[in-house]
Amino acid sequence: MTDTRADFEGAVCPVPLSHKDQIVIGHGSGGKMTHDLIKGVFHSRLSNPALLAGNDAATLTLPPGARLEGRLAISTDSHIVSPLFFPGGDIGRLAVSGTVNDVCTSGAIPLFLTAGFILEEGLPVETLERVAQSMADTAAEAGVEVVAGDTKVVEKGKADGLFINTAGVGWIPAGREIGGELARPGDVILLSGPIGDHGIAVLAARGQLGLETNIQSDVAPLNGLIHSLLAAAPHTHVLRDPTRGGLATTLNEIAVQSNVCLWLEEAAVPVRPEVRAVCELLGFDPLYIANEGKLVAVVPPEEADAALAAMRSHPLGNQAVQVGEVRADPQRRALLHTSIGGTRVLDMLAGEMLPRIC
Amino acid sequence: MTDTRADFEGAVCPVPLSHKDQIVIGHGSGGKMTHDLIKGVFHSRLSNPALLAGNDAATLTLPPGARLEGRLAISTDSHIVSPLFFPGGDIGRLAVSGTVNDVCTSGAIPLFLTAGFILEEGLPVETLERVAQSMADTAAEAGVEVVAGDTKVVEKGKADGLFINTAGVGWIPAGREIGGELARPGDVILLSGPIGDHGIAVLAARGQLGLETNIQSDVAPLNGLIHSLLAAAPHTHVLRDPTRGGLATTLNEIAVQSNVCLWLEEAAVPVRPEVRAVCELLGFDPLYIANEGKLVAVVPPEEADAALAAMRSHPLGNQAVQVGEVRADPQRRALLHTSIGGTRVLDMLAGEMLPRIC
Repeated sequence: MTDTRADFEGAVCPVPLSHKDQIVIGHGSGGKMTHDLIKGVFHSRLSNPALLAGNDAATLTLPPGARLEGRLAISTDSHIVSPLFFPGGDIGRLAVSGTVNDVCTSGAIPLFLTAGFILEEGLPVETLERVAQSMADTAAEAGVEVVAGDTKVVEKGKADGLFINTAGVGWIPAGREIGGELARPGDVILLSGPIGDHGIAVLAARGQLGLETNIQSDVAPLNGLIHSLLAAAPHTHVLRDPTRGGLATTLNEIAVQSNVCLWLEEAAVPVRPEVRAVCELLGFDPLYIANEGKLVAVVPPEEADAALAAMRSHPLGNQAVQVGEVRADPQRRALLHTSIGGTRVLDMLAGEMLPRIC
Repeated sequence: MTDTRADFEGAVCPVPLSHKDQIVIGHGSGGKMTHDLIKGVFHSRLSNPALLAGNDAATLTLPPGARLEGRLAISTDSHIVSPLFFPGGDIGRLAVSGTVNDVCTSGAIPLFLTAGFILEEGLPVETLERVAQSMADTAAEAGVEVVAGDTKVVEKGKADGLFINTAGVGWIPAGREIGGELARPGDVILLSGPIGDHGIAVLAARGQLGLETNIQSDVAPLNGLIHSLLAAAPHTHVLRDPTRGGLATTLNEIAVQSNVCLWLEEAAVPVRPEVRAVCELLGFDPLYIANEGKLVAVVPPEEADAALAAMRSHPLGNQAVQVGEVRADPQRRALLHTSIGGTRVLDMLAGEMLPRIC
């Protein structure tokens, strides 16, 4: 629990750091230090009546529409990204966006989030404060409340700084039937913008590439974009955010769930030149790189134009394009129509290309 | 990714372990290996329609009562216990019970859980299978469904085997108003059984005590016990499970939330002789040791007898006793009336006595 700092003579002497500066085991005790940490770091940033009540569970009242419909969407996601801060985002923005996106791609309106923190002893409290502020900002952007939280501390060397789990609850309005099993032959596949930004931005932030890039993560909550899309194309069949495993894995999942073929036009898939350059240098395929603020929508052909226009009218979808279509055969396959005119099976990601990106 | 095993000559040669034997980074890719792991380990044990649908969020329909009332309880808890298996339980039983208990101590009927796994590279798959089975068994015991999950993998040395976050959603029936802020002078304080078992059982399981004990963790879901209690004492004011920080910290929390004094009779608090012996040997106070299957109930005096009888009629409360009462002054304090007749302030746990117990 000490840090070495040079004193004015140039000698190095240990200076004890207090529990106000960095996380110590006592912050996970459930006692006074935990209460003080929660009050100091979280309550001042993520304040709402349910969280401030201080009970073991948040007590919440569903909005009238949710009570009438009675359908909820529930999801969870753990975040282990390294480094914690990267161009375009940080673990806090990721933790809120990731779960908001998992909830809203079911067609649900996200309402409530929980946040579970696993902190490594020695983490600077200032780091946790920056992350909490980023979570608060992103939650406000998405219109959701963090209503319950938990903080645990593990010994130095038993975790990697900070892990965050978020779980989310949303409600599904009447008439919305959206799911990976609902793609039908003839549907068109829309993509909200260029792929691969998040994965490459995080990789570059590790400083191991030996090259400088200007690539920013796309991490963002997608519920606003989806709201616009569904107003214009209410019979949308599938929504998905292509995170781990990238666009290729997402299309495979839909093909299997719906017993159809997802046909992807390689030339139509937008990839930023910088992302493409890094991928070519390192032997990566952008179709397998994670995104954290992109939307795949499978919509019936009669609503495709309206859907595309609606996506393009939203800041997060202004580069939206049609990238493919749904075909009947071969079932349970994603096929890539390549830029040079060939066709090949687009498999699911087999192993791991880039670990610890989300 | 290799293991050394003695061959028949006694020489030691490396035998490669496959991803079927232990967790590798690819299990966290979101691609085929992740799908295979989820299917092999989780779907066969935690099966239900929402989980099997394979969408990013589970879609669920609330029971009619929940829709009518519209009040939900939501909670989250991360579990970092070391070791993963201990007498009386394991991290899986703990992860389900902990969140079920946080939800049901608000008076809610727990319905749905999410589970987020952070796995350390090298974890035996068999360990994960045992934990998943334990979660399934405990969820069945509690009558809840694990409807959504997430799996991430970190490099060897970047986590301690396995961390599990669970979040839970329940609904609060009409007329139930239960919360830490509702204790009133004159209320009686009931405790469902002896304290300290969980913390001491986990500590003993680390093998660092240098002594053998027969102490078993009390980890269990409390919603059945609470159901019996509330049928007999529907005007119960506060329910709380005294986990991290122990009974003393829980009483302090209630005193602060309700602006009252919680008066505890030391002689009335049940502690098993083996737990007391270990505590005396190591200088611990059982009032600060964590429990994971004990209930504190603050009930109005006119319902106290019925409440106690109902608790005693349930297997998890058959040693229930009255341990104290709520007084008006001094506000925001827990006071201990000691066995030898003195009175002292019972503070909240200041730092940490036993880390990594839940």
